[in-house]
Amino acid sequence: IQSKLPNLQVSIFAVMTRLAEETKAINLSQGFPDFNCNPRLIDLVFHYIKTGRNQYAPMPGILPLREAISRKIAGLYGALYDPQSEITITAGATEALYAAITSVVQSGDEVIIFEPFYDAYPPVVKYSGGVPRFIRLNPPDFRIPWQKVKNIISKKTKLIIINSPHNPTGAILEKEDLEKLAEIVDGTSIFIVSDEVYEHIVFDNKKHLSLAMHPALQRRTFVISSFGKTYHTTGWKVGYCAAPELLSHEFRKIHQFITFAVNTPVQWAYADILNKKELYLQLPKFYQKKRDLFRKAMLASNFDLLPCRGTYFQVADYYKISRESDLEFVKKLATKHGVAAIPLSPFYDEEPEQQLIRFCFAKQDATLIKAGERLCQI
Amino acid sequence: IQSKLPNLQVSIFAVMTRLAEETKAINLSQGFPDFNCNPRLIDLVFHYIKTGRNQYAPMPGILPLREAISRKIAGLYGALYDPQSEITITAGATEALYAAITSVVQSGDEVIIFEPFYDAYPPVVKYSGGVPRFIRLNPPDFRIPWQKVKNIISKKTKLIIINSPHNPTGAILEKEDLEKLAEIVDGTSIFIVSDEVYEHIVFDNKKHLSLAMHPALQRRTFVISSFGKTYHTTGWKVGYCAAPELLSHEFRKIHQFITFAVNTPVQWAYADILNKKELYLQLPKFYQKKRDLFRKAMLASNFDLLPCRGTYFQVADYYKISRESDLEFVKKLATKHGVAAIPLSPFYDEEPEQQLIRFCFAKQDATLIKAGERLCQI
Ligand SMILES: CSCCC(=O)C(=O)O
Ligand SMILES: CSCCC(=O)C(=O)O
Repeated sequence: IQSKLPNLQVSIFAVMTRLAEETKAINLSQGFPDFNCNPRLIDLVFHYIKTGRNQYAPMPGILPLREAISRKIAGLYGALYDPQSEITITAGATEALYAAITSVVQSGDEVIIFEPFYDAYPPVVKYSGGVPRFIRLNPPDFRIPWQKVKNIISKKTKLIIINSPHNPTGAILEKEDLEKLAEIVDGTSIFIVSDEVYEHIVFDNKKHLSLAMHPALQRRTFVISSFGKTYHTTGWKVGYCAAPELLSHEFRKIHQFITFAVNTPVQWAYADILNKKELYLQLPKFYQKKRDLFRKAMLASNFDLLPCRGTYFQVADYYKISRESDLEFVKKLATKHGVAAIPLSPFYDEEPEQQLIRFCFAKQDATLIKAGERLCQI
Repeated sequence: IQSKLPNLQVSIFAVMTRLAEETKAINLSQGFPDFNCNPRLIDLVFHYIKTGRNQYAPMPGILPLREAISRKIAGLYGALYDPQSEITITAGATEALYAAITSVVQSGDEVIIFEPFYDAYPPVVKYSGGVPRFIRLNPPDFRIPWQKVKNIISKKTKLIIINSPHNPTGAILEKEDLEKLAEIVDGTSIFIVSDEVYEHIVFDNKKHLSLAMHPALQRRTFVISSFGKTYHTTGWKVGYCAAPELLSHEFRKIHQFITFAVNTPVQWAYADILNKKELYLQLPKFYQKKRDLFRKAMLASNFDLLPCRGTYFQVADYYKISRESDLEFVKKLATKHGVAAIPLSPFYDEEPEQQLIRFCFAKQDATLIKAGERLCQI
């Protein structure tokens, strides 16, 4: 069998979560909470299962969920998406990313990807026949170097992949970034995939800037988000893509053959809970407390903590502790020191010369304090 | 935006279910039950959600579910699949079909598809760069003409897609079919995708013949099934692919970027319920009763019913009633006579000269009787 993805490694998230289980290390690697979701959400799913909402949902998702998303986007970002034709429910943001990328990228098309990147982007681009063009973001701020973007785009550029709040670095786009991006794509037919799954986790009184907010960008963008990070249900796997009709039309053509439809009772539950705005509006405060708690617990450590403006990830520099590779370092960290983290190198096409690792702080306070204690002893 | 699937129509299942809702017709079109699932399964999902099984499942699925599937396949079909490396949980059989086809089909590869076909096969083959080669199955028995298969295969043939029990015709493979297929692929490197989602719905004391039962076929086959049809939960969207390690390895490479993982609490619930063999062992009797009830209710009608050996679909010939196209006919049937069905022509590459439509009998007895009454008046 001739592999279509010959060089692919096992995902670092799988590797580290397994190592955490084997070593019984505190698992701050893969991004998921160690606490349960809202009891109201549990009751809602139970209600819809009991009352028989257990058969195929419509291919684009149940209409009440699409309507609730449309209202939410309009309220938060001022953009109007027709729930009938411009919003599609997917099997997590992962399916939405896959479907959006593959529905526009054809053989030989170039796709701009910023490093560090979420690990799915490059293989999906390559699988669709595209050619990734990498642009590196630099610590400590990981801002996008727009002049470099301008220099790299050409007639071959089909797509730019944006991710804000940014995994793994916690960077966020500023208003000026949206302006620069709009300026660069103006007059081109470049599409944008905007991965905004951490949209509700932004700190220090900043607001998430969705690409939907900027009309000139909105017109060419697949805005992708999901509910797993917002409702502490990463295992329920419901996401969506909001995009103008022509883009959504192509998106649905492939979505219908990738999964056809998504878990029905969970869609109904999310449709209800989405109308309780306070749940997502209180999330920044909830996670900012955890960020601050974790940073405080690390104050006495030999790690340097980089800025964290959003997401539930904290990047730390271990150059004062060791100069070994980040993969070696996280393995030792789990095995000898009882804390599992994610190295940053798998988020790069070419391994950078740096000593950065990522901790997930979507954990109970006691977990974070205990991890901090262990990390301070290194 | 240049479409990668330019000629695609809206799925006939979406069209007919919508028409059924608009016209308030009895919906015997899209294949799903109009009754609820087992209360025990509901309690299990609730239990796992309450106890916090709500975060990412492992990429290939939770191990207890893979183990339960492995045990079940061993018991029913005598084939051994390593749950660690040879079984992968997917977002319904749809994702499994997509991932299996796209993981082997490359540009220019030929893929043998039998007509009538489940509507996803040809577009997914084309999307992967493959060239479908259609072979027609003929009523009333829809047996595979193996000599034609032999004549059509060449060095370009990469894949054969098999579906038994067969949607939409209700035909099933016999032992002789497996032998013929094995003979034809012997010495070639042709892969097989075997769509067996109706494996537990086979009538008249026949047994489902899985391609897993035949060692020479098993080695080259992606066996695909799911739980929606078996547990009356078509909207929960959990399926799987069982395939030898090398095939599963390629399958997982793309699965991890299509959906990464599947709804966690539902996986745990299925893992438990799968060990209650009586639930799937009693399914043939359950649906045979419904088939017989529906056929009896149609006895006085002007429809000719074709044989139905498996699945929950009954094909009917309306040539005595009308010679109009099947699409026209089902529209009239829903609008004027209050019963929604599925025309067979969307399951063909080139429209056949026949008057066949499909009824789904996964419905409450009262629904079937009422539909029969209406259909007898035409
Ligand atoms: C889909 S598993 C990866 C989870 C995640 O988004 C992360 O840890 O970065
Ligand atoms: C995925 S919707 C189609 C349901 C089905 O399998 C059928 O009706 O044939």
